[in-house]
Amino acid sequence: MYTIAIHGGAGAVTRQTIAADDDPKFRAGLKAALQAASNILKHDGSALDAVEAAVKCLEDNPLFNAGKGAVYTKKGVHELDAAIMDGKNLQAGAIAGVRNVKNPVSFAKVVMEKSGHVLLSGKGANDYALKMKIEMESDDYFYTKQRYDQWLQVRHTDFYHLDHIVEEIPERKFGTVGAVVMDNSGSLAAATSTGGMINKQFGRIGDSPLIGAGTYANNQTCAISCTGHGELFIRAVAAYDVSCLMEYKNLSLHEAMQKVVNEKLKNMHAEGGMIGADAKGNLSFVFNAQGMHRGSIDAKGVEYVALYGDE
Amino acid sequence: MYTIAIHGGAGAVTRQTIAADDDPKFRAGLKAALQAASNILKHDGSALDAVEAAVKCLEDNPLFNAGKGAVYTKKGVHELDAAIMDGKNLQAGAIAGVRNVKNPVSFAKVVMEKSGHVLLSGKGANDYALKMKIEMESDDYFYTKQRYDQWLQVRHTDFYHLDHIVEEIPERKFGTVGAVVMDNSGSLAAATSTGGMINKQFGRIGDSPLIGAGTYANNQTCAISCTGHGELFIRAVAAYDVSCLMEYKNLSLHEAMQKVVNEKLKNMHAEGGMIGADAKGNLSFVFNAQGMHRGSIDAKGVEYVALYGDE
Repeated sequence: MYTIAIHGGAGAVTRQTIAADDDPKFRAGLKAALQAASNILKHDGSALDAVEAAVKCLEDNPLFNAGKGAVYTKKGVHELDAAIMDGKNLQAGAIAGVRNVKNPVSFAKVVMEKSGHVLLSGKGANDYALKMKIEMESDDYFYTKQRYDQWLQVRHTDFYHLDHIVEEIPERKFGTVGAVVMDNSGSLAAATSTGGMINKQFGRIGDSPLIGAGTYANNQTCAISCTGHGELFIRAVAAYDVSCLMEYKNLSLHEAMQKVVNEKLKNMHAEGGMIGADAKGNLSFVFNAQGMHRGSIDAKGVEYVALYGDE
Repeated sequence: MYTIAIHGGAGAVTRQTIAADDDPKFRAGLKAALQAASNILKHDGSALDAVEAAVKCLEDNPLFNAGKGAVYTKKGVHELDAAIMDGKNLQAGAIAGVRNVKNPVSFAKVVMEKSGHVLLSGKGANDYALKMKIEMESDDYFYTKQRYDQWLQVRHTDFYHLDHIVEEIPERKFGTVGAVVMDNSGSLAAATSTGGMINKQFGRIGDSPLIGAGTYANNQTCAISCTGHGELFIRAVAAYDVSCLMEYKNLSLHEAMQKVVNEKLKNMHAEGGMIGADAKGNLSFVFNAQGMHRGSIDAKGVEYVALYGDE
């Protein structure tokens, strides 16, 4: 028995804000990512490899704000963040502010497995990517017309954007992708990847690559991947808080996620959501925004894909 | 009534490893930092201002691995990390991998108060420092013979060091400084600052600037600043774990710190320690290393300064 849950960001995701043409494309992208993870898990692959495969698939899809589809920084480049954590041994790897890395999640896995460190950043992390022969792409690869046009609208302002929050751009969404998995051995893993905020500057790092904030996995409790207003998720130590509520207060996965997203984060005016898996086969999606791109394959093998709040 | 606890790193701090000449200098440095915080608190200053003042004082002291006394990276420069958190409103600011900033803790406070972000990194963070007119110093300022000689011994190796862990250098210590405070209004704050590991490379970020890992403050529970093997403190989400054990399991500050440092971290073979304050006036020092540079002024106004495990 295995389970998979993935997300492609939360926010003002409604039938009005998502173009009719894009709706099926987002769903197809989510399905492909579920399939990528499932292909590994059905052959007794590890949760760790499965979350990597799902996130890699979303990173390769230009529709999501991660990898190829990453937003532009104020300087007109792409600075990528990702994290991965193995619930079996609490090993973790993450990278922040790297450029030209095709699949940040796979790089984060190499950091976890080979570097002796958890978090590498910026130009130094790029040096390490070259040393480890991580697959790189030129800036051209990361060009998408949609993201470039978004950036042109805001590049002369100091306003930063959570994916796209400007009035002129209807779809206001926290662009992040993530996956949580329980594999056939009952082990958990989580991974998250993002291009961060549109027009971000000053080497800003959000919650995605921070263990305990945007990403966490522990076989004793849960695997969590978050998407939302990163600064508030950091201050709330959101992902680890779910784990602590389960470990110390005996809350269920869903109860703990509800408490963190719909009480603690909501009280901080933090918009967003998270996906979770536990080691008993439960999955949960909780978000306090209008919608969240999400999908799952549950313990009975039932596939679910949704974008809006009422699905 | 106010309380202050500070640390200047934990590790193989023994009467054999600390030069007899250095012992009184470390103690004087710790006393000066306590005084800096006390001067603010006795005039009803805030916990936030007091932790900044204490850490600033330690950053200005060439004996501690933070600010002026920071270790050298593999490239022979200084990359500084710091974080500050206000327990009153859970606001936080942090910087990672910045260069030439005289007082990283004060820069972290500006990030918290002015940037709209929590964590800025690398060259981007340096841009922000210039924009905000943060006090900068040339590389010369950060030269200290002791740190330079340490670096010369290891620069040609790929081995990185937790402050100094090489056999040739007897004093093996996790070089970090930190402060936790309860002010007269009962509010808490925490701050941590470090130059990181000697000979570090690849933009490695440790636990110090990560909210929940090396630094955390919440008036409902505690203020914590950690020092130790950063990667393991990140994976354990050590500082926030103390808070959760207090909030969800009703453990006392000291019980929660004991559980995290002497059970959870010890089981992960994570050497180090932490200092903590709660809103009732309690202070605690817990470390699983041989010693920790530390000091406090307790609720009765009694000053305490110590280096070794048996003091």
